[in-house]
Amino acid sequence: MSRPSAAILLTGSELLRGVISDRNASHLARELERLGIPAERVLMVGDPLADIVGGLRELTAGHDLVITSGGLGPTHDDRTVEALAEVAGVPLVVDEPILAQITAWTDSVAERLGFERSRFKDGNRKQARIPVGAVVLGLAGTAPGLVMEVNGAVVVVLPGVPSELRRLWQMAPAHPLVAPLVARGTPRRRLMLRTYGIGESHVADLFAAAGGDPDGVETSICARNFEVEIDIRSQEGREAAGQALFERMEELLGEHVFADDERPVAEIVLALARRRGLTVATAESCTGGMVAAELTAVPGSSDVFVAGVAAYSNRTKHDLLGVSDELIDSHGSVSVEVARAMAEGARERLGVDVAVAVTGVAGPGGGTSEKPVGLVHLHVSSTAGQSARTMQWGGSRSDVRLRATAAALHLLREHLVSCP
Amino acid sequence: MSRPSAAILLTGSELLRGVISDRNASHLARELERLGIPAERVLMVGDPLADIVGGLRELTAGHDLVITSGGLGPTHDDRTVEALAEVAGVPLVVDEPILAQITAWTDSVAERLGFERSRFKDGNRKQARIPVGAVVLGLAGTAPGLVMEVNGAVVVVLPGVPSELRRLWQMAPAHPLVAPLVARGTPRRRLMLRTYGIGESHVADLFAAAGGDPDGVETSICARNFEVEIDIRSQEGREAAGQALFERMEELLGEHVFADDERPVAEIVLALARRRGLTVATAESCTGGMVAAELTAVPGSSDVFVAGVAAYSNRTKHDLLGVSDELIDSHGSVSVEVARAMAEGARERLGVDVAVAVTGVAGPGGGTSEKPVGLVHLHVSSTAGQSARTMQWGGSRSDVRLRATAAALHLLREHLVSCP
Repeated sequence: MSRPSAAILLTGSELLRGVISDRNASHLARELERLGIPAERVLMVGDPLADIVGGLRELTAGHDLVITSGGLGPTHDDRTVEALAEVAGVPLVVDEPILAQITAWTDSVAERLGFERSRFKDGNRKQARIPVGAVVLGLAGTAPGLVMEVNGAVVVVLPGVPSELRRLWQMAPAHPLVAPLVARGTPRRRLMLRTYGIGESHVADLFAAAGGDPDGVETSICARNFEVEIDIRSQEGREAAGQALFERMEELLGEHVFADDERPVAEIVLALARRRGLTVATAESCTGGMVAAELTAVPGSSDVFVAGVAAYSNRTKHDLLGVSDELIDSHGSVSVEVARAMAEGARERLGVDVAVAVTGVAGPGGGTSEKPVGLVHLHVSSTAGQSARTMQWGGSRSDVRLRATAAALHLLREHLVSCP
Repeated sequence: MSRPSAAILLTGSELLRGVISDRNASHLARELERLGIPAERVLMVGDPLADIVGGLRELTAGHDLVITSGGLGPTHDDRTVEALAEVAGVPLVVDEPILAQITAWTDSVAERLGFERSRFKDGNRKQARIPVGAVVLGLAGTAPGLVMEVNGAVVVVLPGVPSELRRLWQMAPAHPLVAPLVARGTPRRRLMLRTYGIGESHVADLFAAAGGDPDGVETSICARNFEVEIDIRSQEGREAAGQALFERMEELLGEHVFADDERPVAEIVLALARRRGLTVATAESCTGGMVAAELTAVPGSSDVFVAGVAAYSNRTKHDLLGVSDELIDSHGSVSVEVARAMAEGARERLGVDVAVAVTGVAGPGGGTSEKPVGLVHLHVSSTAGQSARTMQWGGSRSDVRLRATAAALHLLREHLVSCP
């Protein structure tokens, strides 16, 4: 039997109005890829019943597995379950055990928040109406996730709230209706190279020089977070060809490669510092705490990361980091010299082994011909020495800050690699 | 003539593998809504030519305006232009003036980076091949954005890089092929209420109590960034009904309403402080710089925001914020008392009028039965007095930190509103 084909249906008029951005498609796509049943298309439709019915008809006709997200709430514009019943040509009936479970949940909410239990009654009855033949996968609050065979396809119906979708999806692959499809999946071996400081088109050139994809291997080259990531996926039996391509690319990319796994750069930085027994601090001006926020996003960061200072004014650069007024007067707060003084001041004042400093012009105002928007100076100071970098890229305030944050973490990483 | 119908086609196998998340659909959807030609569906397909051709055929058959994103690069797996030619049934021919423009651009890149100019030759020739009858909207690097009439629909072809897509899209509405569609759009008047501290289902109850949507008015209630947003859109001629609903909801929601526009909370906080002539600082533990990063994300924040301290260790809470060791010993660093001492210490040490402090257990480790993961204490101190809040929500480390960041900004906002 051939590999099953999968598709994703996202519902929600807020998505089509641009009120919110979808966060579920990429999660489900990654999960389907992992199972070896990659998604062939993702379709996004609004709340009207006819639109969801149309989307379900279309996707169940062309795919073996269809996953839907959204439209499971208690309000009038949550219509996915109704659409599912219509496409399947079956009635909706109240599932009494499910109604009891939902009611137990809303009773506890009512208790906690001091509401009348009865206020949830109508909503709960709507939530417990299930198409005949559908199986409840689990509850997310009052919303039942469902699995059902429709038009020869298996449909998995999930809520739109990302954390709830993730939790209920976990139960799907082992479900008796889904498991046979998963058994027919053909997961590919994935090898990854992550690079920094080299452009996407340059990587594409090196990939072409390496001979491109051999049979049964699919490589994608993709820029994100100011890195370029090379993803090599090999079909069963073609792992050696994928491995050979990986090794060739690793050689061609040389020192630009910094990781072969998905860990955030901040986590790599912390691991490098931890292994060397070094503590870290940040001193930020234009990034205003973003570098510290990235480092502290990593669980367990507190054994390495000690403190961060967002010194936005010249006075706090002086008071908190000991940057002299004379230095600021003679070079300006956005300068190689002040970046260095901030890093050295942070090391001394915060009592750490390694400090990284960022100062720049984030814009949109404040640029001059000499120091334009996008100019950023970075500096790392440690017992092992100094590393400095100056960058100049255009873009919005947010672009400049994000790029500077990534650059600060990478400079820290490069510095730590060279530390004893 | 009726309102035109629009659809969006996103291309890219990385999207279907979950390697990257789409960031273009919500931008384009918002733009189309603004023009009064709301998107009816969004379709995401992979790189294979047949998939893009299929998507284009499907969407051009059912819609007046189709916007595509991605697949315009110089490499072999960029196939949108080829697909467009196939669907239109026309050949691709090299557009010499466009080739000259692209070559001028790659020559400047080659110059800057010290590459041979010739390395771009093949790629440039591919980029300059345009379907007969297509018009170039503009260049994003070497990628031409295109406009073309295909199967009676107008197709706007844009690059996948979000900043480039945004820039080229700006030129589309006024384009001679697109403008007649825009002229037939029926923009709706949008009114917005943003609330904090009230649940989505409670808002839905109040909306039902207000009588729901009158004819010609469409309301969406949507939770994001720990707020609940009420969006009321009125068709032409029904603005008064929309306005009446807005006023009724504003009354029912009472003090939970904090804004009727899209400004980030951080921007509202800064405006409130600026109007009162107050300076602001942050003292963060579990959020590690996120509150400072939000405040400094706002252009022009430097006149109000002075400094932020991410005091991750007890020692830095003492050294930078003057929190006494005795206080930490007797109450623990996650306590109402330490939150207050951090805020007061920040005010004094950083010399500001208002300081907000955050201390909590972000997890996943470090929780106890007394101080579980998700427990967060917030404190605002100013010349006008003190505001404090304790919260306890489950979720991942990232959830806890994001929720605490939003809560800190809202506590600051509430405090400032009450300041003279």
